Order: sequence, then structure tokens, then C-alpha cells
Amino acid sequence: MTGSRLSWRDRAGRLRKAPENFLNAEQVASISGGRRDFLRGAFAAAAALGATSAAAEDAPKGDDAILKPQPWATTLGQPVAATPYGAPSKYESALVRRPSPGLTQVAGSSVSFMPLQGMFGIITPSGLHFERHHQGWYDIDPNKHRFMVNGSTPDFVKRAKVYTLDDLMRFPSVSRMHFIECGANTGMEWGNVAVPTVQYTHGMLSCSEYTGIPLRVLLDDCGVDWKKAKFVLAEGGDGSAMTRTIPIELVASGEVIVAYGMNGEMLRPENGYPLRLVVPGVQGVSWVKWLRRIEVGDKPWATKDEAVHYIDLLPDGQHRQYTSIQEAKSVITSPSGGQTLLDKGFYNITGLAWSGRGKIKRVDVSFDGGMNWVEAPLQTPVLSKCLTRFNVAWRWDGKPAILQSRATDETGYVQPGYRALREVRGTRSIYHNNAIQSWKVVESGDVGNVQVL
Amino acid sequence: MTGSRLSWRDRAGRLRKAPENFLNAEQVASISGGRRDFLRGAFAAAAALGATSAAAEDAPKGDDAILKPQPWATTLGQPVAATPYGAPSKYESALVRRPSPGLTQVAGSSVSFMPLQGMFGIITPSGLHFERHHQGWYDIDPNKHRFMVNGSTPDFVKRAKVYTLDDLMRFPSVSRMHFIECGANTGMEWGNVAVPTVQYTHGMLSCSEYTGIPLRVLLDDCGVDWKKAKFVLAEGGDGSAMTRTIPIELVASGEVIVAYGMNGEMLRPENGYPLRLVVPGVQGVSWVKWLRRIEVGDKPWATKDEAVHYIDLLPDGQHRQYTSIQEAKSVITSPSGGQTLLDKGFYNITGLAWSGRGKIKRVDVSFDGGMNWVEAPLQTPVLSKCLTRFNVAWRWDGKPAILQSRATDETGYVQPGYRALREVRGTRSIYHNNAIQSWKVVESGDVGNVQVL
Repeated sequence: MTGSRLSWRDRAGRLRKAPENFLNAEQVASISGGRRDFLRGAFAAAAALGATSAAAEDAPKGDDAILKPQPWATTLGQPVAATPYGAPSKYESALVRRPSPGLTQVAGSSVSFMPLQGMFGIITPSGLHFERHHQGWYDIDPNKHRFMVNGSTPDFVKRAKVYTLDDLMRFPSVSRMHFIECGANTGMEWGNVAVPTVQYTHGMLSCSEYTGIPLRVLLDDCGVDWKKAKFVLAEGGDGSAMTRTIPIELVASGEVIVAYGMNGEMLRPENGYPLRLVVPGVQGVSWVKWLRRIEVGDKPWATKDEAVHYIDLLPDGQHRQYTSIQEAKSVITSPSGGQTLLDKGFYNITGLAWSGRGKIKRVDVSFDGGMNWVEAPLQTPVLSKCLTRFNVAWRWDGKPAILQSRATDETGYVQPGYRALREVRGTRSIYHNNAIQSWKVVESGDVGNVQVL
Repeated sequence: MTGSRLSWRDRAGRLRKAPENFLNAEQVASISGGRRDFLRGAFAAAAALGATSAAAEDAPKGDDAILKPQPWATTLGQPVAATPYGAPSKYESALVRRPSPGLTQVAGSSVSFMPLQGMFGIITPSGLHFERHHQGWYDIDPNKHRFMVNGSTPDFVKRAKVYTLDDLMRFPSVSRMHFIECGANTGMEWGNVAVPTVQYTHGMLSCSEYTGIPLRVLLDDCGVDWKKAKFVLAEGGDGSAMTRTIPIELVASGEVIVAYGMNGEMLRPENGYPLRLVVPGVQGVSWVKWLRRIEVGDKPWATKDEAVHYIDLLPDGQHRQYTSIQEAKSVITSPSGGQTLLDKGFYNITGLAWSGRGKIKRVDVSFDGGMNWVEAPLQTPVLSKCLTRFNVAWRWDGKPAILQSRATDETGYVQPGYRALREVRGTRSIYHNNAIQSWKVVESGDVGNVQVL
């Protein structure tokens, strides 16, 4: 369940001592300068040291060891295009998106989570993009798919139209990197610590480069009346006919995209192939998949997924509705729950920060549960409504520690702790939990999910 | 061979009229406001219009047509995590990397090309990343892989070391987006037009977000003598034992990375899993895969791939050597050779620009073989030594046209035409062809590869 970070746990889930270097400095120095003999020297030394590590155990023994370098250094490998569309290494098979059996009654109306604990940078490979479906996913024939724009009445749109994919691909396109987060991400943590790993606490999150047509351009093509229009309704082509209301200001800004491309290629079927609405900064449910229609009107539609679901239960029993923007949030992805620090010493603490309001301005990290904070360097590029990667150095002294990260966005908004969030929102919400996440490291090196108030 | 752009050719390679909208504006307007009836109305109208498009032909006929929306709108789809590691749509099976049979004598020592003609944005999905191997590729067990740093003599490096993957992943990491281009990209075009499509003219190019440790940090860990060190040698673990000399200035700048991550996950086996050297701006052969060793010295090594291969034959019979930086270059990826414009009217011309010297400053596009130029808007982010996507609007009048793009980088360097390039470099080189690419559109709409001097 822990994915690909070799540093903390092997793939079978057993704790494992980090193998020592199988040559010491003197041994390496003694073979310096004779680079052609490197492998021979290395394996001889490994054999001499005995079985001090997994690698040494697997190395050939005795005289053979001295003469035999690794097989991949002496043989002809696989040909080009052995896999015309490539796949990860067989050694990375644990790094996959994972469902949470029992979370919903039907697996077609459920979630699979992205494995953040083993991932790097900000781009989510499309094969690991999280899934949230309401009536399962489809591989729709793009030649049979249509996209329609119409008004609630003919007043709103002069020329209602139905577009084919061919039509759409001739329009001017834009490419932009944005995060998508399900409104229910971290939803199981509202009342108490519910799940052990970052894959399940924060894995309804992904980030891609999207390509498509600004919806504004298509509304102009249809002759929208920008003065009358106040909202659009986005409708999906799946069996749930997902429908969501979006304020016209977001569309008029040019940010909302009718996307066909994701990370350089066409959208994946489970992410809406061939068309998905991209609504930067807004919760994932509004990024309607298998997009088949945009209706222009002047009132919110209060569809089932706006009136019954995706509303926030407040302490007084009332609900917040149309709470779409994902506020600033961050999480340390490694080390995180379920991983194990194998030794004292230096670690690279890494994580992600994001905000639905714009760019991340800074991320602070605490190693003592929030008493002291250090500013973490941000990796570039830092883009608006996009994941931002941070890395910060930490030397573990072997004592218990609590690791936290806290994001600030360019509006000055600071990610809240659980106490501040619950004072306003209570403990019975499902959606929009952006509280500071705490990971506790105990003396054994094991890392677990805790809540700090 | 043309990939996923629906606009120009269907997957069987036949010319195909772009299907008309199967509803006209009046018909759409007549069903506006009753959104639950959209599909019923649409298919009724399609049936009424008759077989005017592929979609209408495939739609159910008669009374059934009026009652039956698409199956994906009425059924339960696939469950989440049906594919724990996802894959593209079955309708995108033509968009793959492709080898060029016969290009080399052994397919383990050859090339597969990236399908630029059907791609978007700047990120290359790792499954489509081009391949260039010298002795095939391997899926190396990361637990058995080692990375060594040593000096040509002990003077250069105080503490030569051998690192495990576990060791390396505890170091501070960086994530950065960079292009990689094989020095031989566009190599078949030096003397004449050699290949028909952009996949084969420019497909030894990719762009990813890499994560790893600056080599500078590891050399510091080993106690390098920065005054004595002038060059490093990078050595691969494959059977070809690829070895390349890299000037120490590139390492000292912090740009050279010992990478384990690519696009959010571990490197792919065919791209060097578990370790690859990332040398931004420098030709791909120096991005040594399956990296096993860095040696520090004070002279170039003149290895076989520096003395016999990867040298540029000049008109006077001499060779240029150690010509590693990829100068500014660009190409229109769509429309491009082998594609077909199906109709007059508006098109989105799109392409890529890049420079090994830094950021792209501007891209100009010509529709008349270089007589007139217009500046193309650049998509953001524009990053150093990274692909930059440009899009520009064009209205095709049905007459012959020649499409070109010309990149200028932040140093002021302007991509040359073939005449200027050949005056200096002749016609017998293999490497470093960065000339302006021309695509000719004829009256039928077919697009072909031509050279404009």
C-alpha cells in the first residue's frame, strides 16, 4: 500500500534496513582510475564483505562473482517500440490508484485514490489520475459524441449549435496546467482520524496539462447575450447525467475550458474522453466528464448534485450550498502515514500545496506539531490553480516528531488548523476539508495519521 | 500513421468529409429549454435529416431512434480502478511511438519516434516518450542498481562513494520540466526531403518533468575539488556502456540532475529506470540512461560516442566534435505532413519551439513559404530549456500554401533556414539540424514535406 519510495518500506510491506553501501570509501578509491574494471571490482568487494545487504545477497558468489557483472551490462536488451505505448517498470507495480471497498454500494459510483506517497513533481501521470464516477465510466466513440450549446430560452443564445469533435478541434486552443480536487477529498477526516495513508486522506487530487477551447469562445460562436447570461449549466453524457451550475464570471474570464487533451494526448476514458469541462479552482464535480451540453441561463439550476449532494452541513443544522472553490491546502506526501523512517539522519520532506484562488505564495513546515515553522522552498513553476511542490531538509534525531505543512496563497489566505476549521464548519461535513494534516513519527520510525487541534 | 487529430484523417487513413452538425440551428433552438429531452430530440432530428454524416448513419433508425439515446447515457459504466494503472481510449490506438524499420541493423540499437502530429501542450506522456537505445533497454531491479562517484585520480574526489537508490532518495530533490532531443533529430533531412511526416522528421523529441538530485550536491557529498575538476564522465549501465563527457560548468550551475522521477512517477525502463542523467539543453545522448557512474577529471575522454559518433561532418571534410547544445528550433506539428485539410476555412495552427540556450522569446509563422510572417501567441508556462507550445489562427482559402515556423530564443538567436544552415554546415551531417521546416498544403488539402531554400 506504500508505493514506490524505496527509502521506507519494501514492496512486500516488511520493514527493511536500508542496505549499506556495499563498498566503503577506501575500496572505491582503490579501484578509481580503472573505470573498465568497476563492475568486477565492485562485485569482488561485495563478495568479500559478505551478505550485508539484499544486493550483496543476490550478487554472484566466489570466483564467479569476480568475473560476472550484472546481466544487463553484457547483453542485448529489448528492442525499440517493444511497447508502442509504454508502461511502468514491473518493480513499480505497487504504485497504483486504489479504491476503498465498501465506501459506496456500487463500484461504478465510487472513488479510486492517487498514490501521492510515491509520486514526484506536480504532473500526475494520466494512468494514476484519481477517479470519481457517479454511474461508472465509458470509452465513448468520439465520432458519435456531440457537444451542444443552447439557451434556457432562445434569448440567451442567438445560434444554438451542436458540435462534432472535428468542429471543435478546428477552434483556437489553449494548454494550461491545473489541479483538480474532489470536494470530498479528506472528507473522512472531519470528525476523527479515519484512514491511515495519504493516498486515502488526500488522493482525490491530480494535476494535468489540459488542452481545449475556452468555453467563452464557443459561447461567442453561438452568439451568447453576455448581459443576460448569469450562469451556465454543464451536462455530462453518462448515465448519471451529471449537471452542475457554473457562474458566468468564471466562463467570461476565459479560464473555463472545453478540454479534449490531457498531458499531451486525448483525455483518458475514465476522465471524460472525449470532452471534459475544466473549471480551474473549482471542486472536481463541476469538471463535468463526457461533456455533452452547455445551457446558458440566469438562475442556478439546483440540480440533484447541488441540492442533495455536494452541500456542507454546518453546526446549526443548515447547509452551505454552491461552495465550489477549493481553498488553499497542502499536505506532506513523504514521509506520510504508513511509511517508515529506517534510520536517523537526513530526510527530504516533500509535499504539495494548492489553492483554488490563484498561486501558492508560501508553504511553512513544522516538525514539532506546529510550535515552530520553517519556510519550505517551492519548486518552479509556481502556477495559478495548479499543484506546487515543496521540499525541505530535515534531520531526524530518532525522537517522536509531528510533521505538518501550512499553505498561504496569493490572496493572503492561510490554511487553517482543525480547531479553527471546526469552529466554523463543525465536524459533520463531507466536503471542503482543507485543514492542516499532521503525521506523527514514533521512535521506531513508523509514521501515522494524527489530528492536532 | 496520422494519430489522433480527428480533423484531418480518420484512423483507417481514408479521406473523410468532416461530418456536418446533425442538427441545424433551428432544430436545436426548437428543443431548447427542455433539457431532459435533448437526446430524444437530437436523434429524432438526426433520423429526419437522413444519413448526412457518419454519426447519423450509425444512429438507430425509425421510431426506435426517437426513443433510444446513446447506450452510455442509460447504463452503468465500468467500475473505478477497473484499470489500476490507466490506459488511453481504444479509439486512440493509432497514436503510438513508431520505429523506422531498416534504420539500423538491430532493433535494439534503433529509434522509436514520438507522434507529435496528434499531441497537445508541452508534456509528453511517458508512454509516448521517444526511444533511442544503443544496445536495447532493460528493466533493471532498482535494489541491485548502484551509482558510483569517483575521480580519475583520488585528487579529484576526496571520498569516492557508491550509492544505493535508498541513499539517493534521502537527498534534497528538485523537480524541473525540460525537453530532450536526440542530436540526430531531423537528421534525415540534411540533404533532401527524406521522410513524409512530422513523427519521423521531428519525433526524437520529448518533454517531461524530472525529479532527482542536482549532481552538484552529490559531488559535494563526495568532496569534489571544484578547482581541479574540469569535466565529468557519465557512464550507463547497459551493454553499450554509454559514456559521455560533460563540462563541469554545467554541473556547477546545478542544472544537471541525477534523476529517478519522470512525470510524477519513477522513470520508465526504456528511459533509464532507475537512474538517468538529465543535462538540460544538451543533446539526448548525454542524458545517460541506467546511470551507474560519474567520474571527475580534467580532460574530455573522447569516448567512442564522442570520437566516432555524434560528430558533425563539415563541407571541408573535417568534423565538429563536442557539439552538444541543441540550438533554437521549432516545428508546426499540426497540420503537418501526411495530414489533410478537409475544408476551407478556419484552422488552429499549432506547434512546438525549444532552445538549449534558455527560454523561447518568440515564434513567427508564415503561410506563404517565408515571404510574410506573423507572431504566434505562446502558451504559458514558457520555461528554460523546455518545450513551448504556440497556436495561431489561419483561414485556408483553398489555394496552395507553405506553412513554416521560426523560433527566436532569449539569447536573440534566430532559427535558420536551410540555405543559411547549409552554407556553414554543408549537407552531409547527421546531427544538429535545426532548420526551419516547411509543410506544403496543396489544393486537395493534402499536406506534404518540402524544403524551402
